[in-house]
Amino acid sequence: LAGMSTSALANAELDALMKDDNQWAMARKDYANQGYSKLSQINKGNVKNVKLAWSFATGVNRGHEGAPLVIGNTMYIHTAFPNNVYALDLDDNQKIRWSYFPKQDPDVQSVLCCDNVNKGLGYGDGKIFLQQNNGVLVALDAKTGAKIWDVKVNDPKTGAANTNVPHVFKDKVVTGCSGGEFGVRCHISAYSIKDGSLLWKAYSTGPDSEMLIGKDFNKENPHYSALSVYQDVNGGNKEGGSFKPLDKSQLKYPEADLGVRTWHKPQQQKDGWQNGGGPTWGWYSYDPKLNLMYYGTGNPGTWNPDVRPGDNKWSMTIFARDLDTGMARWAYQMTPHDEWDYDGMNEIILWEANGKQLASHFDRNGFGYTFDRTNGSLLVAEKMHPFVNWASKIDLKTGIPVKDAKYSTHQDYNAKGICPSALGVKDEQPAAYSPKNKMFYVPLNHVCMTYEPVESKYVAGQPWVGATLTMFAGPDGVMGGFMAWDALKGKAQWYNKEKFSAWGGALVTSTDLVFYGTLDRWVKALDAKTGKELWKFQVGSGVVGNMITYGHKGKQYVGVLSGIGGWAGVAMNLGLTNETDGLGAAGGYKELTKYNAAPGGGAMNVFSL
Amino acid sequence: LAGMSTSALANAELDALMKDDNQWAMARKDYANQGYSKLSQINKGNVKNVKLAWSFATGVNRGHEGAPLVIGNTMYIHTAFPNNVYALDLDDNQKIRWSYFPKQDPDVQSVLCCDNVNKGLGYGDGKIFLQQNNGVLVALDAKTGAKIWDVKVNDPKTGAANTNVPHVFKDKVVTGCSGGEFGVRCHISAYSIKDGSLLWKAYSTGPDSEMLIGKDFNKENPHYSALSVYQDVNGGNKEGGSFKPLDKSQLKYPEADLGVRTWHKPQQQKDGWQNGGGPTWGWYSYDPKLNLMYYGTGNPGTWNPDVRPGDNKWSMTIFARDLDTGMARWAYQMTPHDEWDYDGMNEIILWEANGKQLASHFDRNGFGYTFDRTNGSLLVAEKMHPFVNWASKIDLKTGIPVKDAKYSTHQDYNAKGICPSALGVKDEQPAAYSPKNKMFYVPLNHVCMTYEPVESKYVAGQPWVGATLTMFAGPDGVMGGFMAWDALKGKAQWYNKEKFSAWGGALVTSTDLVFYGTLDRWVKALDAKTGKELWKFQVGSGVVGNMITYGHKGKQYVGVLSGIGGWAGVAMNLGLTNETDGLGAAGGYKELTKYNAAPGGGAMNVFSL
Ligand SMILES: O=C(O)c1cc(C(=O)O)c2c(n1)C(=O)C(=O)c1cc(C(=O)O)[nH]c1-2
Ligand SMILES: O=C(O)c1cc(C(=O)O)c2c(n1)C(=O)C(=O)c1cc(C(=O)O)[nH]c1-2
Repeated sequence: LAGMSTSALANAELDALMKDDNQWAMARKDYANQGYSKLSQINKGNVKNVKLAWSFATGVNRGHEGAPLVIGNTMYIHTAFPNNVYALDLDDNQKIRWSYFPKQDPDVQSVLCCDNVNKGLGYGDGKIFLQQNNGVLVALDAKTGAKIWDVKVNDPKTGAANTNVPHVFKDKVVTGCSGGEFGVRCHISAYSIKDGSLLWKAYSTGPDSEMLIGKDFNKENPHYSALSVYQDVNGGNKEGGSFKPLDKSQLKYPEADLGVRTWHKPQQQKDGWQNGGGPTWGWYSYDPKLNLMYYGTGNPGTWNPDVRPGDNKWSMTIFARDLDTGMARWAYQMTPHDEWDYDGMNEIILWEANGKQLASHFDRNGFGYTFDRTNGSLLVAEKMHPFVNWASKIDLKTGIPVKDAKYSTHQDYNAKGICPSALGVKDEQPAAYSPKNKMFYVPLNHVCMTYEPVESKYVAGQPWVGATLTMFAGPDGVMGGFMAWDALKGKAQWYNKEKFSAWGGALVTSTDLVFYGTLDRWVKALDAKTGKELWKFQVGSGVVGNMITYGHKGKQYVGVLSGIGGWAGVAMNLGLTNETDGLGAAGGYKELTKYNAAPGGGAMNVFSL
Repeated sequence: LAGMSTSALANAELDALMKDDNQWAMARKDYANQGYSKLSQINKGNVKNVKLAWSFATGVNRGHEGAPLVIGNTMYIHTAFPNNVYALDLDDNQKIRWSYFPKQDPDVQSVLCCDNVNKGLGYGDGKIFLQQNNGVLVALDAKTGAKIWDVKVNDPKTGAANTNVPHVFKDKVVTGCSGGEFGVRCHISAYSIKDGSLLWKAYSTGPDSEMLIGKDFNKENPHYSALSVYQDVNGGNKEGGSFKPLDKSQLKYPEADLGVRTWHKPQQQKDGWQNGGGPTWGWYSYDPKLNLMYYGTGNPGTWNPDVRPGDNKWSMTIFARDLDTGMARWAYQMTPHDEWDYDGMNEIILWEANGKQLASHFDRNGFGYTFDRTNGSLLVAEKMHPFVNWASKIDLKTGIPVKDAKYSTHQDYNAKGICPSALGVKDEQPAAYSPKNKMFYVPLNHVCMTYEPVESKYVAGQPWVGATLTMFAGPDGVMGGFMAWDALKGKAQWYNKEKFSAWGGALVTSTDLVFYGTLDRWVKALDAKTGKELWKFQVGSGVVGNMITYGHKGKQYVGVLSGIGGWAGVAMNLGLTNETDGLGAAGGYKELTKYNAAPGGGAMNVFSL
């Protein structure tokens, strides 16, 4: 009966759209977040002839993340704040069918940590879903743009905002929260696709009841639910001393209410978990067979680790939740007691190998993880690049990172040479997976940092960062890279350097082409087998958007939003030049002004043969 | 001796650059304003293969008029307000050599009548000249972007601003004034290329001494200097009655101080000429042999004709001035006592035929004029399209338009069906001339209007329009066109309709290709002989910029700024939707929102084979 009700609630139209390679009906094309297409008109032989077919300037500046949706003969384009939406008629030279201009208080921009970004739209039930920066989730009639319903998800006055895609999974629209830099207690929430009514809400911190953690939680890996994973609950001492990981026999588990009890010392106000962060602004995925959805939570608030001794659960965590009830099936914390802002919110990509249902995740902390997604068992956790130095490895038995005392951070101590920087080895830019090659294609940062936690008082709606950073190129002498990753072996098949972070999302096709864009305005196609560059094109502004492909009237198109921004580009966009401005991005990315007009002008770029 | 001193002051470097078709060193390529290039790599056979080579988003929205300069391996790009300048290294993938971000009080935007436009840069003496919207003329080191000198040309507090190109003629930088809608008494002024010192300044209205009108003025055509050219000095009566042109025998000439004496009734404040407009925001040209420069003046202030009986000289006038002294050699008023805002500022294109030194001009008022440019003798004046109805013809002997009473305008009377609209049959969008074909290629508007003059009080720095307009498509059922014009015969060789005004400037090449851009985002190439469309490409935003071509490392490039705006796009850019908003553009051009994101995002687009 349970099985029947699930299938009765399924979204047959969206299922069909996701299977049709001519469409791009979800942020990452399908529930699995693979960014993979079987369209094959563009191949290794002819990709050199790919040229711009048309472009569409959005009239909005700053970071244009995510990608449009393509459904039938319509392309739906979103913009950075104020999050305008355009429906373009692909049958009529991209004529604008309708546009939607949200009215948002411009003040919301002050609670967006990392530029005015919006990661895109959702589609289902004939509706286009827009999660506005100001916390309002809107359902628009896909045909006319008329507003069908809206609902307030977050209140920017408290520092809570949104930059994420509203993900349509079956009959629900799932959305989250940004605010890790504002002491927000974030959540993930599911709304009815029909009328916007709230179906469930699960916080990232707090008592199990409010986190929707129940009795089956982590049952195959109860050690994930340990009260503390290090000898020293503070993860280290002020001298940078011992914070040895406990081994499995020493762990106490399972424990309840860890979302409260791993925040040992009260912070400035209330208990730490009440301003605990755990934002959920990434790309979520969903397995319809298991009926589980997957997402990661971001950093614990504040960036000064000394004020929040303990593991700070469930920040920095991958969650698997039952879509219908919201109940957590399993959760694994990647970076207990974060000291570096290694948000765990990067996408989780679902795939299969050797008959196993897997989930892989390229974490900010520099490790590439592969799980058994049915139960959360950790199978692989390897450094994505040897420059990662905050931890020597992840103990596969316990899942605990073995930290290096040298790179521990403490209040009023300026820790140097930490790799990766707070941006992570990869930030929001999603990787792609080729089921044909069983290989992941991962856009990367290659940036290190100094990190000095500082005292900082929580004031609702005000930045509550509590650390000063500088950023600089990693040991390769560049700021970025791009690699093919074998997620079973936990190692790179090939690795290319990039001058800057590759801050845009990847696409891989069945013809073994990998596409992505760069901050210095290139859109590139690589040979998926070797990493060899086969084609590139210079667009108007740096790319932080995700590549898509779709078919229309027998022709394959490849597209991407340009418009530099996001954390890497925010300082440039705002004209900030002090090294530590833009949470450290101003110094690290100062060369961007040699390649981009400031601020970045947004545009959709569509290519074809 | 006079000849020697002229040549000693010549700008040999600029002369050479203008002759080199690989360069684009002046707004319209050369002193003659021809917009013509002998580059021939792109031809009728291969133009279909032209594709976008690269683009550069300026990060600035709204109308991007004019064109970049290309000098050697550098492209200099300007933007709409705040008039940023970028120097791009064409040898290094357009890497930004330097950028210049003027600091301008944003208030200046409120005195720009027709969008935040800037028509481009000048080059000479190793300097890039930028005429900022706020009236400041700046000389930048072309190599480094360092400011060498600046000078305040106009004061926006009085309503005087700039949108024009600072034209480098020989050793001078010539610039002007916008403010016809603000009761500004405009001027044209020449500054030393070396140090920015003012060399001469000639007003558009006022006593001859301040207009630099001396004894040789109009000597071959003294009837141009008549006190009044109609029987009724008001050009008509309130009933729309008689305003018969005087014939040559009835004219009294030559008269002095017409810039004062043709403003009969005092306006609200002062004498009319003191707030008489005559703005000079167009494209100027220069004949080095005659040492004469040519430009047009715009509308008389205010748009309500009843408050300024008389011919309102020297508004609506083409001037030829000695470059060194500024003294007027000849002047011809195209629209005496303007009743429709038919600014006479459109470009004057210099050319030769049958051994004659000619100048042709496509006026807003709908007539195409050809003059003997040595002395101003009017040779040809014909309607550019039969829909022009405010006048039946121009009397070639006197130069006086024969007005049609039906389309006369008067205070509190809503005149209907006037063609063309105030936008003119052509507005600022410059035409091109092919010396090979002896043919002009002219981007056109095809818009009619209602026009109701209203009482309006002059307040310094405030809009002083004095008329309410609506605009609509002309009898062809479209808003624009593009034609090839024989300026000796005074008739079109071919004429194409365009959905919207062709608001961008034309380019013609020796391979008989004509290029221009459209408001609905197309960049087009036509066969110059037939008007047949050979190629088109959809750019990101509507085009109000001028097409250029240049050569680099053996390759021919064609380029244009996109970014919709100017008068046609200003209402869209500002989100104005009342029919009469944007001086009537909101209603007329409301369909633009189906083709463009609002506001228009600026970008440079560069094409090649
Ligand atoms: O803690 C948060 O709530 C939060 C929000 C966001 C965001 O929503 O943009 C980012 C981050 N953190 C963050 O840590 C980060 O690296 C980041 C990069 C970007 C981006 O769009 O480029 N956003 C964010
Ligand atoms: O009277 C003036 O001072 C003045 C200035 C300008 C300008 O500087 O943009 C325009 C006009 N008038 C005008 O009449 C007009 O049609 C016009 C069009 C445009 C444009 O950029 O598209 N500017 C102007």
